[in-house]
Order: sequence, then C-alpha cells, then structure tokens
Amino acid sequence: MVKVERLLVNYKTLEEFKKFKEYGLQELSMLEDLQANIIENDSDSPFYGIYYGDKLVARMSLYRIDKKFDQYFEPKQDYLELWKLEVLPEYQRKGYGKALVDFAKSFGLPIKTNPRVKSAGFWEKMGFQPVKYDVERDRGENPLVWYPEGVKEQQN
Amino acid sequence: MVKVERLLVNYKTLEEFKKFKEYGLQELSMLEDLQANIIENDSDSPFYGIYYGDKLVARMSLYRIDKKFDQYFEPKQDYLELWKLEVLPEYQRKGYGKALVDFAKSFGLPIKTNPRVKSAGFWEKMGFQPVKYDVERDRGENPLVWYPEGVKEQQN
Repeated sequence: MVKVERLLVNYKTLEEFKKFKEYGLQELSMLEDLQANIIENDSDSPFYGIYYGDKLVARMSLYRIDKKFDQYFEPKQDYLELWKLEVLPEYQRKGYGKALVDFAKSFGLPIKTNPRVKSAGFWEKMGFQPVKYDVERDRGENPLVWYPEGVKEQQN
Repeated sequence: MVKVERLLVNYKTLEEFKKFKEYGLQELSMLEDLQANIIENDSDSPFYGIYYGDKLVARMSLYRIDKKFDQYFEPKQDYLELWKLEVLPEYQRKGYGKALVDFAKSFGLPIKTNPRVKSAGFWEKMGFQPVKYDVERDRGENPLVWYPEGVKEQQN
C-alpha cells in the first residue's frame, strides 16, 4: 500500500530533492525562502511524494491554475498543472509514478503536464493525450492532458 | 565563418529535425500542416539553424512575445523566447551554439530561455542570468534571461 503525502518544506526535504534530476530554480528558491525565514520550517510545499521508510523516492509538483487562465479545457475551468514527476532510478517499476498520478486525478480536475520527451509511453498508459499544438500557447512544449468525464479539448 | 539561416518548412528539414533530441509536438504539427497543405512547402519556419555542407547540425526556435505578455523585463517590451537550442553531438564545441545565441541577440531584444538543467555553464558564458523564481509565472521552469543595455528585471 503506497501512501502519497504532501511534502513539508524543511532542510531534510530540500536535501532529498537534490537526488532528483529535475532539481532547479524552484528548489533553490524554496531553500532561500527557508533560510531567510520568508517561509516557515515545515510549511506545506507544492510537492507531493512517496517515502520508502525514511527516504523520499518519488515526487511531483502540483499547482492549481485558475479558470481564467485555462487555455486547454472545454468547458473552461480550474485545472491542475503537474510537473517534476520523478521516481528515483532504483525505485522505478513499482507503481510509484502511477500512485502519484492517481493521486493527482483524485481531485477530479483536468490535468496538464509537459513531460520529458522519453516518457510518452508512461503518460499514455495513464490516460493522457497530446493536445493540438498551438505555438503561442505551447511554445516548445509537448503538453499532455488528462480529461475527467465531461471535459474535452478547448477549441481556439 | 558560420552562417545562421532561417529554416524552411519542407520534408528535408523535417527529416533532419528527427536527429535532434528535442523533437516533439511542434515538429509533428509542422509535418501535419505540410502534409495537409495548411502551410506551403518552403514556408519560413520559427527555426534558425546552421548547415555543415548540406547537413543541418545546429538549430533553435525563436519566437517574438508581445509586450503585453511581458512578465520578465523592465521596461515592459517585446522580447524573444528561445527554445530547442541544440547542436548535434559530433558538432559541439565548435562555436555553433554561440553563433545561434549571438544571432538571437542581434535583434536587440531581451531574450528568455528555459534550458535543460545540464546546460547552465553554457548560458552563463553567453551572459544569461537566472530570474527570481515566481511559481505562478515560472511553474517548474528554470528561466534564464539576457538583458540588452538599459533593460532590467521586472519587479512583481
């Protein structure tokens, strides 16, 4: 039984984030905010993860986008943007990636992600589909979306 | 002497694009548009590249963003978004990446890019700097920007 938890911002979490490939400006900014007391130790972060014992082995960031910025879904609505879904190499193929995606789906909102190119097979299995490319909206991205029942692609 | 050219949309170009790692929805969409006669053979593409003899060995996509969408620069202005800068492995370390970036700079507009994590050293040499991370604007991105003289970071 795999448990998905919302991650807390603290030095332990931020140290564990360094093991993930997609460590970047977002994580550095969280570290600076913690050091400068702009956010409190153990605040809720935008990350969700799975621990194996005491070790963080999978994570993703989830962010709710307001309906007024929705350029993907019909009817227009709040949706979730999912990024940095990643499972540490030794813990792959155990269903942790699926557990995170299922957790994201459990909010009942449409989901958009912009995966790394190599992961298309995984997202297809998760029920995600490519959108029709729009250069102004998508720039160089490869957006994939998941539609809950009753939601479809926005026509622009 | 390295020449940067605007690439034409045709079957040869699209076949050459397949050699680049960051081949994705944008390229597939160009192929479909060509096949469906939505765009003409030899139309201008949003890509610029460098040929070595007859072979495309480096490329980038450049897109002008209107001032009204500018969330990065002060004063607010049109800027260029640069993505998919890539040099084929056997042609790296010959200055082709720098030639493409210099070409982008020659428009005199600020530039934003969202590089792959491993390429930070290259972008620093090119004079690009990280922005202050803003979750609503940057999501999971790691934006780097280049400021022409007289332009600075937008304060939000």
